[in-house]
Amino acid sequence: MAPQLDAYFKQVDSLAEHFIDRLAKAVAIPSVSAEDERRPDVVRMGYWLADELKSLGADVELRPLGKQPHKEHLDLPPVVVARYGNDKNKRTILVYGHYDVQPALLDDGWATEPFKLTVDDKGRMYGRGSTDDKGPVLGWLNAIEAHKMAGVDFPVNLLCCFEGMEEYGSEGLDDFIKDEAKQYFKDADAVCISDNYWLGTEKPCLTYGLRGCSYYSIEVSGPGQDLHSGVFGGTAHEPMTDLMKIMGGLVGVDGKIAIPGLDKLVAPLTDEEKSLYGDIAFTMDNLYESLGSKTGLFPDKERTLMARWRYPSLSIHGVEGAFSAPGAKTVIPAKVIGKFSIRTVPNMEPEDVDKLVFDYINSEYAKLNSKNTLKVSLQHAGKWWVASPKHWNFTAAGKAVEHVWGVKPDLTREGGSIPVTLTFEQATGKNVLLLPMGSSTDAAHSINEKLDRKNYIEGIKLLGAYLHYVAEEPMKES
Amino acid sequence: MAPQLDAYFKQVDSLAEHFIDRLAKAVAIPSVSAEDERRPDVVRMGYWLADELKSLGADVELRPLGKQPHKEHLDLPPVVVARYGNDKNKRTILVYGHYDVQPALLDDGWATEPFKLTVDDKGRMYGRGSTDDKGPVLGWLNAIEAHKMAGVDFPVNLLCCFEGMEEYGSEGLDDFIKDEAKQYFKDADAVCISDNYWLGTEKPCLTYGLRGCSYYSIEVSGPGQDLHSGVFGGTAHEPMTDLMKIMGGLVGVDGKIAIPGLDKLVAPLTDEEKSLYGDIAFTMDNLYESLGSKTGLFPDKERTLMARWRYPSLSIHGVEGAFSAPGAKTVIPAKVIGKFSIRTVPNMEPEDVDKLVFDYINSEYAKLNSKNTLKVSLQHAGKWWVASPKHWNFTAAGKAVEHVWGVKPDLTREGGSIPVTLTFEQATGKNVLLLPMGSSTDAAHSINEKLDRKNYIEGIKLLGAYLHYVAEEPMKES
Repeated sequence: MAPQLDAYFKQVDSLAEHFIDRLAKAVAIPSVSAEDERRPDVVRMGYWLADELKSLGADVELRPLGKQPHKEHLDLPPVVVARYGNDKNKRTILVYGHYDVQPALLDDGWATEPFKLTVDDKGRMYGRGSTDDKGPVLGWLNAIEAHKMAGVDFPVNLLCCFEGMEEYGSEGLDDFIKDEAKQYFKDADAVCISDNYWLGTEKPCLTYGLRGCSYYSIEVSGPGQDLHSGVFGGTAHEPMTDLMKIMGGLVGVDGKIAIPGLDKLVAPLTDEEKSLYGDIAFTMDNLYESLGSKTGLFPDKERTLMARWRYPSLSIHGVEGAFSAPGAKTVIPAKVIGKFSIRTVPNMEPEDVDKLVFDYINSEYAKLNSKNTLKVSLQHAGKWWVASPKHWNFTAAGKAVEHVWGVKPDLTREGGSIPVTLTFEQATGKNVLLLPMGSSTDAAHSINEKLDRKNYIEGIKLLGAYLHYVAEEPMKES
Repeated sequence: MAPQLDAYFKQVDSLAEHFIDRLAKAVAIPSVSAEDERRPDVVRMGYWLADELKSLGADVELRPLGKQPHKEHLDLPPVVVARYGNDKNKRTILVYGHYDVQPALLDDGWATEPFKLTVDDKGRMYGRGSTDDKGPVLGWLNAIEAHKMAGVDFPVNLLCCFEGMEEYGSEGLDDFIKDEAKQYFKDADAVCISDNYWLGTEKPCLTYGLRGCSYYSIEVSGPGQDLHSGVFGGTAHEPMTDLMKIMGGLVGVDGKIAIPGLDKLVAPLTDEEKSLYGDIAFTMDNLYESLGSKTGLFPDKERTLMARWRYPSLSIHGVEGAFSAPGAKTVIPAKVIGKFSIRTVPNMEPEDVDKLVFDYINSEYAKLNSKNTLKVSLQHAGKWWVASPKHWNFTAAGKAVEHVWGVKPDLTREGGSIPVTLTFEQATGKNVLLLPMGSSTDAAHSINEKLDRKNYIEGIKLLGAYLHYVAEEPMKES
């Protein structure tokens, strides 16, 4: 029997402006985890979140994670854990989100101040972290508040795990989750994470797979300091020359990764899997709209979705240590660090990928015959994850989507990595569901990140509805 | 007959601390011409210099150069022109220098604050612009002051031309010099520029040749905005992939430029020219000391000096628009701009070089078959220059060097470009001499730029002595 949710939904609608104001306060805290000097803001964001949870009646703890590895002067931001409800007759759902964000500067090209939530006349709410992941995290808090205000009994015991280092490899979190799986999280019957996106802009989805991500640095150094290209150009080995050659050889213009052996680690495509792609609500126009251009690699949706979900990719992100400002500077940089990452898929074991990457780059560099010095290193790695979409956790969420949005969700995988998903699954032994709030045009990690007002408000309804359905769903795989 | 210079030299020694203090004041003004937001500091530096000249009794004018091309909101900094002495019985020497500097940030790796002159116990005076070119510019002012204080008659009429855009292509100066050649500068009998460096650290030199510099941008764009590499990696053409391939193909690890036809523009090496390199006071250890490493391309001094002076080179400076900070960011940059420059030599006409560069890059890009968009452009170009070292301007300077330093100078060429040298020669029709003050280890354009106290103080003596010798030198080529 479908739960009665009308009073809850009505309350969410009447609290909408209050919920948007809560998101504005969260966006105003520039909790950028990748920048050392922003660390106090990340910590401040954690405390703010803990205070909000306390004011809603949750039991909250701020758990320290110790020092940041390789940066012993920096404390890791605390994990905010919370429990709302402790009724042995109810199921317990563990939810995860993150309160840190990607770097953002107005100078990067933002149309509005990145750390000021700015709502336009179409209801697009612009701001760093709006969709990734402050909106979804606050969705859980808003669901609690709307239940209280509407006088509707909260259907489950809710456990929260909100971290502050997701955008920098979730440093320290894995051990924490493993430790708490049999302690703070021991009652959890299932896990739900809202930290990804719809495939398009119209149809919600449930996500049962993620690519992993292995992020590498290639450091080339030679001279003792930066040099004047007039004085030294033509007389010395230049680190940028070597780095460009190595970076230029990593991947083809067609997206094919040049590292030998990598393709052999990828699980073969079965006919059954292949047949699934045709039905997904996705068009090439969806891709072009999100890209903001028609520079797609493949002409058809099936190959495009497979490239995003079930094949690896390699992206070159930038160079540290070289001239990066506008204008002209006639410098020969002494030490340059190229950054690239590989999105990994079943059955690529991260250690195997590392070995192939290191071997390839070292052997390519040896061929260059340069007197400079090369160092390749892994910055961080998160493994891919694939779950069963037939579990009751997923069927409950499917019913909630149908109730709120009036359509059955697509069952999708994701190109991005949320390494903690796998950690939760392995540590708790429970099913993990990814239940996205935002849409494909939200521009997470880019300039002008936004969350649509409709996705936020209906998303709050969805998270609440999911908790009602998951409380009632028979405990078996269908 | 050698001029009597003892009183002048003694006065310079007794004013040494005052002269260092003057340099400290100049270094404290961060007159970075390549950064728009520093423009007011560049202008402030021009006014400060004009005030110093006025207080020494020179007639000074601040000449506007109008708006900066392609940046119409920015005024170009003024040219500071000055006349000291107007005696028809004396020769008139035109001196040039620049009061702007290269960019510098403590975060770039400076050991001391770049805009605070810091003198260590070995007399090394660290600070941006100390050697390039504030020290030499102030050398002329200090020479005037020491003559006045010592009561020694100033031997020539001095014309000064100090600009504020040298580190950004001397925007606007060429037309100014051409216009003033027959007006403000019409009395000039010869030109002297102190804006380069000794070849090593022990022996002074006079310089009669310079390489040119053509600075290019390669812009690759595709997506409408930066993208998340998890969501879009593998599905779209990535501008960084294309740029790395183009940049990786520009030059070999051995320094050989890959652009076809460029080598055919280079003047052949004659036996006579080849024989000149053996005597130059330069060792491979000099190179290694300046490099701060043993990553030289050639094992011998002759080939190294030729590579610096008489062969072209290509250096890759960096990438604008990509991720350049420490840490990790999983971005696919939407638009990236690679920067590189070519040092040019006789007989490479800049327009011919542009054509070969554009043709090569466009044809290499076409081969990539990418849907992204490429734009190659010239940021600025300065032509190479070679003069006659047998002119009386050079012989006078040679005698001054011998008087101050006790050795005959090496006659050298330079790898760096000072495009204004050629402009002065062509516009005035007079001989141009390059008379350096600093040494090879001064790290111009790099972190920890410095000028040795000895080079500064003896350099002030040298500039004064040169003016005495040039006043007396017979007006003929020997």
